[in-house]
Amino acid sequence: MANAQLQPVLDRIDADFDNSLERLFALLRIKSISADPAFAGDCKAAADHLAKDIATLGFTAEVRPTAGHPAIVAKANGNTGGRPHVLFYGHYDVQPVDPLNLWHRPPFEPVVTDHADGRKIIVARGAEDDKGQLMTFVEACRAWKQVAGSLPVDITIVIEGEEEVGSKNFVPFLENNKDDLKADFALVCDTGMWDPDTPAITTSLRGLVYDEVKIKAAKRDLHSGIFGGGAQNPIRVLTRILGGLFDDNGHIMLPGFYDGVKDLPPDILAQRKNLNVTPDSFLKPIGLSLPAGEKDRLLIEQISSRPTCDINGIVGGYTGEGSKTVIPAEASAKVSFRLVEGQNPDKIRKAFRDYVTARLPGDCKAEFIDHSNAPAIALDWNMKPLAAARRGLTDEWGKEALLIGSGASIPIVADFKRTLGLDTVMVGFGLDDDNIHSPNEKYDLKSFHKGIRSWARILAAFAETPK
Amino acid sequence: MANAQLQPVLDRIDADFDNSLERLFALLRIKSISADPAFAGDCKAAADHLAKDIATLGFTAEVRPTAGHPAIVAKANGNTGGRPHVLFYGHYDVQPVDPLNLWHRPPFEPVVTDHADGRKIIVARGAEDDKGQLMTFVEACRAWKQVAGSLPVDITIVIEGEEEVGSKNFVPFLENNKDDLKADFALVCDTGMWDPDTPAITTSLRGLVYDEVKIKAAKRDLHSGIFGGGAQNPIRVLTRILGGLFDDNGHIMLPGFYDGVKDLPPDILAQRKNLNVTPDSFLKPIGLSLPAGEKDRLLIEQISSRPTCDINGIVGGYTGEGSKTVIPAEASAKVSFRLVEGQNPDKIRKAFRDYVTARLPGDCKAEFIDHSNAPAIALDWNMKPLAAARRGLTDEWGKEALLIGSGASIPIVADFKRTLGLDTVMVGFGLDDDNIHSPNEKYDLKSFHKGIRSWARILAAFAETPK
Repeated sequence: MANAQLQPVLDRIDADFDNSLERLFALLRIKSISADPAFAGDCKAAADHLAKDIATLGFTAEVRPTAGHPAIVAKANGNTGGRPHVLFYGHYDVQPVDPLNLWHRPPFEPVVTDHADGRKIIVARGAEDDKGQLMTFVEACRAWKQVAGSLPVDITIVIEGEEEVGSKNFVPFLENNKDDLKADFALVCDTGMWDPDTPAITTSLRGLVYDEVKIKAAKRDLHSGIFGGGAQNPIRVLTRILGGLFDDNGHIMLPGFYDGVKDLPPDILAQRKNLNVTPDSFLKPIGLSLPAGEKDRLLIEQISSRPTCDINGIVGGYTGEGSKTVIPAEASAKVSFRLVEGQNPDKIRKAFRDYVTARLPGDCKAEFIDHSNAPAIALDWNMKPLAAARRGLTDEWGKEALLIGSGASIPIVADFKRTLGLDTVMVGFGLDDDNIHSPNEKYDLKSFHKGIRSWARILAAFAETPK
Repeated sequence: MANAQLQPVLDRIDADFDNSLERLFALLRIKSISADPAFAGDCKAAADHLAKDIATLGFTAEVRPTAGHPAIVAKANGNTGGRPHVLFYGHYDVQPVDPLNLWHRPPFEPVVTDHADGRKIIVARGAEDDKGQLMTFVEACRAWKQVAGSLPVDITIVIEGEEEVGSKNFVPFLENNKDDLKADFALVCDTGMWDPDTPAITTSLRGLVYDEVKIKAAKRDLHSGIFGGGAQNPIRVLTRILGGLFDDNGHIMLPGFYDGVKDLPPDILAQRKNLNVTPDSFLKPIGLSLPAGEKDRLLIEQISSRPTCDINGIVGGYTGEGSKTVIPAEASAKVSFRLVEGQNPDKIRKAFRDYVTARLPGDCKAEFIDHSNAPAIALDWNMKPLAAARRGLTDEWGKEALLIGSGASIPIVADFKRTLGLDTVMVGFGLDDDNIHSPNEKYDLKSFHKGIRSWARILAAFAETPK
């Protein structure tokens, strides 16, 4: 039955696309930056806005409090009986926008514009991550509802507002709402295509341990002329410790860091080599030419199957224009590790903190803040809904959908398994040049349009898949 | 003649002290932060205010333009004949006030308050450095003028507005106004006492090379999930390079850094040891306990006769609250070196830049900004005005004035020698706990009051010293 209605649904999506875009813009205009408490009201506004919109599709949609920014739970269980029940997940919160001066336009005034190579793109903070992506699913539901009067499968939508700050309050929310969030499997739309023409389903993800370390020494800032040479300098201590995290070959020096990390099986490695990820294809577009990871590994391994360490931020002392001869009282850095299967996040965090602590000179203290703690994920390639999702994507894009590993982390996937017992199908339409988390974030207009059409097809394919 | 009038002058200073304080407060209320272009108008206002005030003392006082913030030149050449002619130097510009949240009161709303140990202190940005210090001299001149009708020596006052940003435009100003700034010797009031009861004349200063380095890699900020492991991270590069600046014993690793540095002669070293600068006396008040410099040197050497390196600021990536999985396009640091006699600033700067450049991995560029370039100074202990200044100080404080070496740098002293051929007598009333360049900068009320009295005596002593 679903199949007979699919073509009218796809036609409806095409006919209504300008309105879909306007609805996305309305969401993009809300400054729902979760990391900055100053935008808490905007986060609440985004949740209210989305719940109201989703309610118009026949869902019972509620904004529910968490200990942080609120979550949305919406249900459309139109049918009893044997239909699959999917739990769709997205997040309405976005990354901070700094450095603001590098944006070509205000980040919360979305526009459709032309990319340098002629592609039409939607530019705004959240255009891809994750407002654009989650709206592909919402708009697909809208078309099904409008054309068929109901949805082809049972759907629960859950949308959180703290993904960009580690989902600390959302995970307890999942645990407290376990019974209410029952489903057969989960869908996450927060990943990417293989390339602009080739759809993909992400079946493995790197984990993420993200720690902040603050080194403290004197009880106040000091003048370097009077105290320089005699007083400990926390920036010196911090750079010395962080500067030792890598050896000359790019290996990470934390004791036990590589414990449990396995090499790719030869057949998978051969397959990955065939993907032809080269410095020219992958690094040149961002102005680089040399793989910066472990020297004894291929670039495709460095970015997908090998664990990594990055210093994501550092600050201390005087950072304004000009000069100031200060020895600061403290200096801090944000350090993250991408993990692969076999690595334990708790052990990695402990190894990092032990490493720092062991290298602290006298008179220095270190304080740590835990920002993220997610293990790597490897999904079962034989799970049933994967084949249906793959069929829907392949039909829409006219190219076989690839099953890929991603270097990024989507911690919620492990949380769904642990709290709700659900496997996740990760389908998304992002591209490597979307500038997510950066100035001038964009989403291809084609990703948004064909993304909606892809979900319409995938929902039809799920309906035809026996539970 | 001078001596006969000294006591009335000192009495006048005591009687007028509340007004002296109010005049200092008026100057402290002007936000003359030279480093930040937003305060250029305030710098001009400070110059106008000071020139107007000094003109009331019978000086011809002019605000003169430079390529940066203006300078003041004021002259009181009341006498022909054989009187000494002194060139007094101060600066009206102050350091930035960040981190503002650590100030207990607004930095430009001066007050007199009680220090924890009961001392009365003046709290404000610039309370000591250099507004409080320069006003000790101005107020001494005022008392002499009011009591005696004229000044005991010929005086030219020159006050600049860019000391805190390296005096880049003031040095050419000196060169262009050479004839107009002729004098027998210079006076600088920008140094400290030995302790709250013991006056001091500073006869040696460390030099200062201050460089900013910016490391650039990718052409935009990147997402560490997608690019982490494959793309170069400028913070990683920066910490690795700066982390190697010191060996385990605190020696600075730039090739040639210690070339030309001499050990103190045994008698001077013995004298310095007698000063009893210990971790307990010097470091404990700032919350530290261990000398952080070269392990094979005494603390008194580390802070006065040995060259040092400090990282004064570092910034890169995301530094706000929470977390962001970004690999930034760039990261930068401000690095300074305190130099001692025998070191050449140009060579040190080149050694630093070569060190950084030689360690840059592929795909990275380094850019440098020169913020300061001053050699160390060692003055002739036998110069004539030194004895007069010492006598004035000793009379006022009732304790022998010490001749000391300072770890700080006052680049203008070398510039006076080079451009005007003048030696400088450095007398000041700062204390180690004045928090200059830090939040809650203060100046002891006693420093201000007895500082004015000291200059009144020193001017009398100069008048009695044959040229």
